[in-house]
Amino acid sequence: MAKRYIGIDLGGTTVKLGIVDENGGLLYKAEKPTRGEEGPEASLARIADHARELAEAIGTPWSNVAGVGMGLPGFLDLEKGEIIRLTNIPWERVPVRSMLEAELGLPVAIDNDANAAALGEAWSGAGAGFNDLICITLGTGVGGGIIVGGRLVHGLSGMAGEIGHIPVEADGVRCGCGQRGCLETISSATGMTRLAREGLAQGRHSVLDEAEKRGELTTREIFAAAKDQDGLALDVVDRATDALGRVMAMLSVVNNPAAFIVGGGVSRAGDELFTPLRRSYAKHTLVEVANGVQILPARLGNDAGLIGAAGLVWNRGS
Amino acid sequence: MAKRYIGIDLGGTTVKLGIVDENGGLLYKAEKPTRGEEGPEASLARIADHARELAEAIGTPWSNVAGVGMGLPGFLDLEKGEIIRLTNIPWERVPVRSMLEAELGLPVAIDNDANAAALGEAWSGAGAGFNDLICITLGTGVGGGIIVGGRLVHGLSGMAGEIGHIPVEADGVRCGCGQRGCLETISSATGMTRLAREGLAQGRHSVLDEAEKRGELTTREIFAAAKDQDGLALDVVDRATDALGRVMAMLSVVNNPAAFIVGGGVSRAGDELFTPLRRSYAKHTLVEVANGVQILPARLGNDAGLIGAAGLVWNRGS
Repeated sequence: MAKRYIGIDLGGTTVKLGIVDENGGLLYKAEKPTRGEEGPEASLARIADHARELAEAIGTPWSNVAGVGMGLPGFLDLEKGEIIRLTNIPWERVPVRSMLEAELGLPVAIDNDANAAALGEAWSGAGAGFNDLICITLGTGVGGGIIVGGRLVHGLSGMAGEIGHIPVEADGVRCGCGQRGCLETISSATGMTRLAREGLAQGRHSVLDEAEKRGELTTREIFAAAKDQDGLALDVVDRATDALGRVMAMLSVVNNPAAFIVGGGVSRAGDELFTPLRRSYAKHTLVEVANGVQILPARLGNDAGLIGAAGLVWNRGS
Repeated sequence: MAKRYIGIDLGGTTVKLGIVDENGGLLYKAEKPTRGEEGPEASLARIADHARELAEAIGTPWSNVAGVGMGLPGFLDLEKGEIIRLTNIPWERVPVRSMLEAELGLPVAIDNDANAAALGEAWSGAGAGFNDLICITLGTGVGGGIIVGGRLVHGLSGMAGEIGHIPVEADGVRCGCGQRGCLETISSATGMTRLAREGLAQGRHSVLDEAEKRGELTTREIFAAAKDQDGLALDVVDRATDALGRVMAMLSVVNNPAAFIVGGGVSRAGDELFTPLRRSYAKHTLVEVANGVQILPARLGNDAGLIGAAGLVWNRGS
């Protein structure tokens, strides 16, 4: 009988679980409260119960489940399979891999949630069929996941793919990481709304002024205004896509990926983002390098994390 | 009996051949004329003879040779095992892999010479023991080779590792590739001597003026003058190492390699290069990322290319 894999996407308030087939196809999923405040033992025991219920719900014998993977928001010791500390869940130094293995009697793999989402898109999302690709998530920050030869790249201390912290503007604003002018300060949702606000503060006329006064200045408003040829909105989109295109050009002479998969909230803008982004990439990339490289929207949405988590057991990466 | 591998480093005038053990240890080597003008058939047949002589010379039965690899200077179609065109040898569209396989009766692998040299250093040079590393060659240009999970990264069109063409100065001079301000225009031997000449032309006082008048302005002179606290020489070294350190910082949030191996003519300067380079890297790299990363001089010198070529058969990479 065909093998099944269970993926768990642990968040601060809810935990998403999914059971997938060998091609990364999602068969069934569920969402439960995390209740991190109960402590890791109680919370993980409950999550293990949910994992078994998931298999039961679609009539998969437990012996057919080949492994369980978990994506976690925070800093991990991947070698030891331990949580160092998490964002929004007060757990520290928790040997989560061995705890889940004891609960489930199955091999368990863990990774950070950005890498899990990248692996999901690579396995059965927009990246399926590409051996070398880079996933970029444009949300509150800019995250990345690097796939080389079909495997996730982690690097020495798991910092591979932290492309949001590549500096792109020499005298840019200070980033949360301490550096100046990081990609994340410009091409994330936070960065784009900041640029729009700066333009308004400088007295530029723009339809965005009203959204700002309503407290509703989001990238959705910015892209809508850009579509209507609003000058400020066009400038913000231009600056965000120019910076990202330059970073993608540079990534192309490092790993020369066949595809860039772009997801996250900002990517919902569709062509309003992808058209100027493809233009910027073509402008900044040597033609021999850009040739054949695809820039594609992510396809799995919020399921990418749990599908990718399910793939972690077989995709050990490097 | 232990397996042996033969590596061939094809150059414009000479071809270097070596036979190595399973750990990348060089057992015996030879250097012969390339005679590319005779055409690929005649030249490759002679090289195949030299390969057999090499095994004979150390008493290795041909049946013990597990494979032959060749590093080539130029553009290759790695999938087809074909030369597209070479630097300094007038061969085009030559199916070199199948031709050598027919001559030798063994599996043959080809790659460009920069990747072969990187693999050599990774296998039995300064990079031995590191799974993820980046080799940087500072010569006439700036070359690179990327190793992830112990394997060479090629990418979609074999342009992975072309890190000399990462732009580092927005309004820099034009690079051979057509872009402006590429790393190669600043941190290569060519770039450093150009910067020194520009300084002299601007009337700066420097001991380099005499070297220039003798037509002997090289990076060796620049590093020697820097050691003697010559202001212009110090500025040139500072600018070259600052640019390279910034690129290495960026590479660290892409693949997060455990080590950078720096070779090529410029690297012979030793501490005069490595001390400011390590300082620049530490300055530009997030401390969580820089932690534990080593910056090491290459160790195999001119043998890196043939040792790495010998490793190509088993290291298929991605």
